[in-house]
Amino acid sequence: MCKIRKKYNKSVVLVSGGMDSCITATIASNESEQIAFLHANYGQRTEKRELKAFYDIADFLNVNEKLILDFTHLSIIGGSSLTDFSIEVPEADLESKGIPNSYVPFRNANILSAAVSWSEVIEADAIYIGAVEEDSSGYPDCRRSFYDAFEKIIDEGTKPQTIIKIETPLINMNKSEIVKLGFQFNSPIKLSWSCYRNEDIPCGNCDSCKLREKGFKSANFIDPIIK
Amino acid sequence: MCKIRKKYNKSVVLVSGGMDSCITATIASNESEQIAFLHANYGQRTEKRELKAFYDIADFLNVNEKLILDFTHLSIIGGSSLTDFSIEVPEADLESKGIPNSYVPFRNANILSAAVSWSEVIEADAIYIGAVEEDSSGYPDCRRSFYDAFEKIIDEGTKPQTIIKIETPLINMNKSEIVKLGFQFNSPIKLSWSCYRNEDIPCGNCDSCKLREKGFKSANFIDPIIK
Repeated sequence: MCKIRKKYNKSVVLVSGGMDSCITATIASNESEQIAFLHANYGQRTEKRELKAFYDIADFLNVNEKLILDFTHLSIIGGSSLTDFSIEVPEADLESKGIPNSYVPFRNANILSAAVSWSEVIEADAIYIGAVEEDSSGYPDCRRSFYDAFEKIIDEGTKPQTIIKIETPLINMNKSEIVKLGFQFNSPIKLSWSCYRNEDIPCGNCDSCKLREKGFKSANFIDPIIK
Repeated sequence: MCKIRKKYNKSVVLVSGGMDSCITATIASNESEQIAFLHANYGQRTEKRELKAFYDIADFLNVNEKLILDFTHLSIIGGSSLTDFSIEVPEADLESKGIPNSYVPFRNANILSAAVSWSEVIEADAIYIGAVEEDSSGYPDCRRSFYDAFEKIIDEGTKPQTIIKIETPLINMNKSEIVKLGFQFNSPIKLSWSCYRNEDIPCGNCDSCKLREKGFKSANFIDPIIK
């Protein structure tokens, strides 16, 4: 019996600990010979709980290579309700077309840049990120065109022999499709954490909780973190 | 008498404390109504001395808005002799065409991403960086094509109303032209620091010292930091 060669030799997965990153990690694990997990601590309110989710998902997927990076400079720069505690996290408004105040300016570029640095050192050939374009509160750095442009700066700004693709398997899905995909891949969704406000019981009212709830409802599944 | 409007309203200048960033800051100051200084501490050997240079140059140019960001995650990632102290900083080899081991993987993308985050918060419309393509040891993220690609991810990844240009006034110059330009603009070159190894007296033998020495020699100036 011959072994089928996977798409990538080694992939770095950006794992916040949320549901999208949990499912993305499961997909990356299927598509890569090895995976490595990167978690960005950027001074967010629920960092401790997210970190627990990160380690739980890593254990479930047998990930040895893990890196926690301190991006607290993003909270020093401020400008977001997720990191600047003087700005309140608003109640959900899923109909709003504007950019919410939980937007951390250019956050994903900061995290991706570090992921590229690490990938170049550990010789990973792909970076997986669970960004979602349609369903993710209108953050401007969650669009595929942003990642296409980012692949160009990787080509320009790294060693000639370095080739790193950015994989965004969920980018064109809505939360309902993501939930279904997660169950299809046996992703450990019950280990993930989405709430922007609380660390014990999900508040149920922030954008992130509401999106998750909506996703489970329309997919006709029960969220395993709700007891 | 009418006041001539400058090119930018507010510019963020990346100031390492080296000669190139010192001269770039002087140019930015001429072209902008206001300037703000950003310094990246990424765990480099000579950080303390560079930071002193940063503050000295800021004082000279009357810069009030200053931000020091901790990028020590770049030293955690490692892979460079500038941040990984188990790798020795090599003697200069200005003829080498390869990428030297002082290359910090994707460093400028990490620093620029944070600069964009800060610029978006403080409403700056330009970022100045003293990158030099021809004369800068072959770092792959010191080429104009890299910055052109980076402007594209700023367009893609920030709020629709955010417009931030990346200015690289020295990019096509050699060190001799940079030295001449510095004197022409009365840049406080004597306050800058270039040595990769020492914090008291420049070693005179690392790439950075050798490039600086070569620049002053061919420009026919005496380096004011050499006593």
